[in-house]
Amino acid sequence: MPEPFQFNVVTTYGQARAGTMKTPHGTINTPAFMPVATQGSVKGLSPEEVRIIGAPIILGNSYHLYLRPGIDLIENMGGLHSFMGWNGPILTDSGGFQVFSMGSFIRINKEGVIFRSHIDGSRHLFTPEKAVENQRRLGSDIMMCLDQCIATDKEEELIRRAMLQTHHWAARSRETYKGGNQALFGIVQGGVSRGLREESAQFITSLDFSGYAVGGLAVGESKREMYDIVSYMDQLLPKDQPRYLMGVGSPEDLVQCVARGMDQFDCALPTRVARNGAVFTPHGRVDIRSRKFQDVKGPIQEKCDCYACNHFSGAYLHHLFKAKELLGPRLATIHNLRYLQRLMEELRSHILNGTIDAYVKDFLSRYKTTNEVARLAQKKRWLELRATG
Amino acid sequence: MPEPFQFNVVTTYGQARAGTMKTPHGTINTPAFMPVATQGSVKGLSPEEVRIIGAPIILGNSYHLYLRPGIDLIENMGGLHSFMGWNGPILTDSGGFQVFSMGSFIRINKEGVIFRSHIDGSRHLFTPEKAVENQRRLGSDIMMCLDQCIATDKEEELIRRAMLQTHHWAARSRETYKGGNQALFGIVQGGVSRGLREESAQFITSLDFSGYAVGGLAVGESKREMYDIVSYMDQLLPKDQPRYLMGVGSPEDLVQCVARGMDQFDCALPTRVARNGAVFTPHGRVDIRSRKFQDVKGPIQEKCDCYACNHFSGAYLHHLFKAKELLGPRLATIHNLRYLQRLMEELRSHILNGTIDAYVKDFLSRYKTTNEVARLAQKKRWLELRATG
Repeated sequence: MPEPFQFNVVTTYGQARAGTMKTPHGTINTPAFMPVATQGSVKGLSPEEVRIIGAPIILGNSYHLYLRPGIDLIENMGGLHSFMGWNGPILTDSGGFQVFSMGSFIRINKEGVIFRSHIDGSRHLFTPEKAVENQRRLGSDIMMCLDQCIATDKEEELIRRAMLQTHHWAARSRETYKGGNQALFGIVQGGVSRGLREESAQFITSLDFSGYAVGGLAVGESKREMYDIVSYMDQLLPKDQPRYLMGVGSPEDLVQCVARGMDQFDCALPTRVARNGAVFTPHGRVDIRSRKFQDVKGPIQEKCDCYACNHFSGAYLHHLFKAKELLGPRLATIHNLRYLQRLMEELRSHILNGTIDAYVKDFLSRYKTTNEVARLAQKKRWLELRATG
Repeated sequence: MPEPFQFNVVTTYGQARAGTMKTPHGTINTPAFMPVATQGSVKGLSPEEVRIIGAPIILGNSYHLYLRPGIDLIENMGGLHSFMGWNGPILTDSGGFQVFSMGSFIRINKEGVIFRSHIDGSRHLFTPEKAVENQRRLGSDIMMCLDQCIATDKEEELIRRAMLQTHHWAARSRETYKGGNQALFGIVQGGVSRGLREESAQFITSLDFSGYAVGGLAVGESKREMYDIVSYMDQLLPKDQPRYLMGVGSPEDLVQCVARGMDQFDCALPTRVARNGAVFTPHGRVDIRSRKFQDVKGPIQEKCDCYACNHFSGAYLHHLFKAKELLGPRLATIHNLRYLQRLMEELRSHILNGTIDAYVKDFLSRYKTTNEVARLAQKKRWLELRATG
C-alpha cells in the first residue's frame, strides 16, 4: 500500500525545486502557496471560488477553530473538510503562533502554554500532545508541531530559549504522533542566527518528520536577513522532504524564497490587503481606490485570467471600493489569490524548463516592492498582522 | 417590428395574474420579485450568482448611482448593464424616494426638488425631466417617474399635496419621454385613502404609461390597510398593463399582494435581514445566529435548492455569522433571494393551474410573520429602512 503522504522532487535548478506532494485529499504541485482560511473560510470566498482559483491546498488555524466553533463540533460535523465544504488538502497550524501573538498569552509551564481566549477571556492550556490531538480531530492532511515563535529582533538569548522550548515540544509532538493518514511537520526556529538555525535544523530533522517548516521569519528582520537565512536553510534541510516557509506570501518574497529552495508558503497578507483594495499587478501592488482607476475600462490587470479581470472593469472595482460594497473585497481577493497561484505555476514551469534564473530576474526588475513589511515591523504590528488571518 | 416593451397577462385567477413582460434584455415571468442593487451591486453577490438564483430583473437606485460613481461615468462605461456586468433586465427608480427619505431634502421649487448629497453634503437638483434623462443614460429597461413619497400616517392634506406634486411631475415626465427601447412607468400615490387613490389612478393612467406603480405603501400603515389599498388598486388600474408595488418584499406581503393583483415588487428587506443572519423558511424568518443552529448538520432549510443549502450545514452558517466571516451574509443573501424567487415561481404556477387560493391559504397558515415592519414604523425608521438598499 502506498504511503498516504508522499513528496517527490521532480526537478531542481540551482536551489529551486519543483515537486509533487501526495495527500489523502489530492496531489499538490510545488512550489505552492496556501490561502489562509483562518476560521474555516477563506475570507469572503466560497470553497468553489478557491477551487476555481486553483489553490491546491489551504491553511486552517487551530487556535481560532479550537475557540470557535470548537474541535468537538467540527469533529462531530465530519471534520474540517466536510464542515467547510472544501475537499482538497488542508494544512492546519498548531495554534501556537496565535497563542503567543494575540496578546492573551499567560505563561509557559511544564505541560505547555496557558493563554486566554481573545473572544471571551477564558483560560486554556495547549500542550504539544493536545495540539496534535486537536489537529488529528480536525482531520487536516498536514499537521504542525506546537512551537514558540518570537520576533527576530529580540535578544539572542530569548530567541535561543524559544528555540529550545520548540525542540522540547517537537520531541513530545513526535512521541504522541501515531502515523496514519495525516502527516506531521516539524518546525525549525532560531531567528536570524546561522548558528541557532543549524542547531535547530539538526535537532528537528533528527526526529524524522514528514516535512519541515521554517518558522520565526518575516517577524521583524530585514528582507536581506530573511533571504539569507532561507538560503542557508536549504543546506540544512533534507533534500527529499518538503520545506514550508511560514507566514511569507508577498509576490517578491515568494519569488525570492522559491529561488532559495522553499516548497510551501502561507500568508494572510494577500487576502488582507485585497480587502483594503490593494491588488497585485506585474508592476507591484496598486491601490484600486486610487483616482487613476476611476474610469479604467479594462480590467485591473491586462491578460489576467481571474474572474474579476474577466468580468469587470477597473472602474467598477474602484466604484465598489468607494461605495463600500461587499463585492469589492471579494473580487480583489479572487484577483490576488489567482495572481499568486499563477505566479507559483509559472515558477514551477520555469524550474522544470531550467529557465528560472531569467524568470526571477525579469520578475524582480518589473515588480516594485513595497516597504510595508518593514514599516509594520517597526510599528510592532507584525504579530497582529500575522495572527488574525 | 415588435414593441421593445410588451406585457401580456397569460392567466388570471380571482385578482391574481400570471403574465410575461418583454424587455430589451429578456423576458420576465410575472409575478416577479426584483432584488435591489442599490449602488450597482446586489450586496455581496456577483451578477452570476444573481442569475443562478433566477432573478429575472433587478433594481438600480438612480439617487445613489447619480451621486456615485455618477451618470456620466456609467454612460461612458456603456450603461449600467455593462458597468455592473448584468445583462438581464434592469428597472431603475427615479431617485425621488431617497431624496425625500435620506434626510438631506432641502425644498421643492418650481423646477423640482433640491437636496444635499448624503456623501459630501453637496447641493443637487432633481427635476422630472432630469430624472428621466438620468435613467435614459443609465440605459435601464424600465424607468420610473419622479414622485413624492410620504408616510401614510401623515395628515391627509399633506398626503394630498404630495399626490398632486407627483401628478404634476408625472405629466412633465411623460412629456419629456420620447419612447424608444426603455419603458416609463407612472406612480400612483394617495396614502391609504381610497378617494385619493382613485383620483391619483385616474390622473396617472390618463397619461398613458407602459406600466403603473403603486407608491406610498409599506410606509407606516397597518398590514390590513396596505392589503386593502392594494386590493382596491386592482380595480383602478388597467387590466392589461403591469402593476408594480414599490418597496414591498417580505414573503407574507408578496403572497398577499400577488393574490390581490400585483405583478412586480422590490424591497431591500430580504437582503438586509440576510446580512444580519435572518433567513426565510416555510415557517417564518429564523435567526441563524440562534443557538439552535449550533450543531445542525442539515441545511438551514430542508429541500431548498439554493447554493447555500446545497453545500453547507446550518452549523457552518451559524459559525460564519458568529465568527463574522464575510461568507455568512453572502450565503444568507443567496438563500433569501432564492427563497423569494421560488416563491414567485410557485405563485405563478398556482395561478396558471387555478390552485392559487389553496396555495395562499396553506402558505399563510404555515408562515409565522414578524411584526418588524410595524415596529420599525413606530420607531420612525421606515424611511431609512427603505432608502439605503
